[in-house]
Amino acid sequence: MCELLAMSANTPTDIRFSFAGLRQRGGRTGPHRDGWGLGFFEAGGLRCFHDPLPASESKIAELLSQLPIKVKVAIAHIRQANVGAIELKNTHPFQREVNGKYWCYAHNGQLADSESLVSSHGFQAVGTTDSERAFCWLLNQAKVAKIDLTNPQSGYTFLKHRCDQLRRMGVFNMLLSDGDTLYCYCTTKLHWITRRAPFGQTHLSDVDWQVNFAEETSPKDVVTIIATQPLTLDEQWHAMQAGELTVWQQGEMLKLG
Amino acid sequence: MCELLAMSANTPTDIRFSFAGLRQRGGRTGPHRDGWGLGFFEAGGLRCFHDPLPASESKIAELLSQLPIKVKVAIAHIRQANVGAIELKNTHPFQREVNGKYWCYAHNGQLADSESLVSSHGFQAVGTTDSERAFCWLLNQAKVAKIDLTNPQSGYTFLKHRCDQLRRMGVFNMLLSDGDTLYCYCTTKLHWITRRAPFGQTHLSDVDWQVNFAEETSPKDVVTIIATQPLTLDEQWHAMQAGELTVWQQGEMLKLG
Repeated sequence: MCELLAMSANTPTDIRFSFAGLRQRGGRTGPHRDGWGLGFFEAGGLRCFHDPLPASESKIAELLSQLPIKVKVAIAHIRQANVGAIELKNTHPFQREVNGKYWCYAHNGQLADSESLVSSHGFQAVGTTDSERAFCWLLNQAKVAKIDLTNPQSGYTFLKHRCDQLRRMGVFNMLLSDGDTLYCYCTTKLHWITRRAPFGQTHLSDVDWQVNFAEETSPKDVVTIIATQPLTLDEQWHAMQAGELTVWQQGEMLKLG
Repeated sequence: MCELLAMSANTPTDIRFSFAGLRQRGGRTGPHRDGWGLGFFEAGGLRCFHDPLPASESKIAELLSQLPIKVKVAIAHIRQANVGAIELKNTHPFQREVNGKYWCYAHNGQLADSESLVSSHGFQAVGTTDSERAFCWLLNQAKVAKIDLTNPQSGYTFLKHRCDQLRRMGVFNMLLSDGDTLYCYCTTKLHWITRRAPFGQTHLSDVDWQVNFAEETSPKDVVTIIATQPLTLDEQWHAMQAGELTVWQQGEMLKLG
């Protein structure tokens, strides 16, 4: 299995605190040694950092832990391989351009018979993971159905139906974003927390790092973190339910469905 | 304008020596301060590092100068912006997936009336550069004409014709690769050098760094470097001609056309 991390915020925000916790699970406090990736959306641009090395040992991850890249949306993944060899092309997050926007995606879980998702036209997986096949399948299905995923309402209706289909093939926890809207679908494990004023202190659970968000934020900031498992010790994270799709913009959960 | 750098080799090779020279021109020995990018192909996977900061000052470029990432094909770019703001989405190289393979592309030059290249379907530029529009246009044209760019012969015939068209719109020096084949098209400035046994010593022209390739290579290695301007002082680089398209595999120039 793998672990997922995403952020949606109403102001450019530094994800290093959360990534520092996730990173430990990539070989130190967790078994997810088979690569990692972190994608940052910046004004419509997307830069993904990938490494097939364990996050806890990766020099690129080490650099990112020192670089204050502030963004509104980010998606990260640490991998414990099941389907697909440990190599760069199987390292999440994956990205594609649709109608002039980048989409970034990461998956945790396992899908039986993922070959059935493969298409000979449209978006095609470069690697051999069930995850990337499901990503391309979702984008191809949206294209055929002429669904505009940048519209949260039509995106919700479409993705809820299609992700439910994928869930019947196994475990499908996933994150998908174009930098504005963040979709999070849960089969087994996905937790979220929204931080807003009054901000308090918190501790990472995987490494000795405490932060006082009151010192790092302004009173108007709204920042949601989504993660496979809660990353902090002293906050109340919300567990998503099986089959639940949450949709986020500017750090807020949209009321849809 | 900008500067380009690419490598094609028959064995995984460290591009740091060449990139160190290019990097200096990104703000120190050259005026190309408006971002940089470097894409590495690794077993069909592609990882691109992008930064809208000057290469000579970028911490990510600094890290790459310390990381021995060995690959057969790499594409790099340092930018001096003309069309399109200085931001991540306008930072080369660009990438797209075609038929389950990643393609990586960078451009130097300027195209008049690049809006005429824009399509409302197929691949679409995310940013606002003439460069990315030309990239998407080339891929869309190849798709319509059912050209398989992974086949060097059909790729050559197609790209020669289409790049000649783009050259009539201005200056079009470009690099394009799927990790196996590297296409290089010249309008004004593009130089190449192929290094093979017996390897010798060379000096970078932009920074005091000397390397003895005999110590870094095996006798069977063949490594071609393509760059806007020669990067070394004591080697004989070959200037490409206006309208010339060279095609490289495993460090060797293919005889086509």
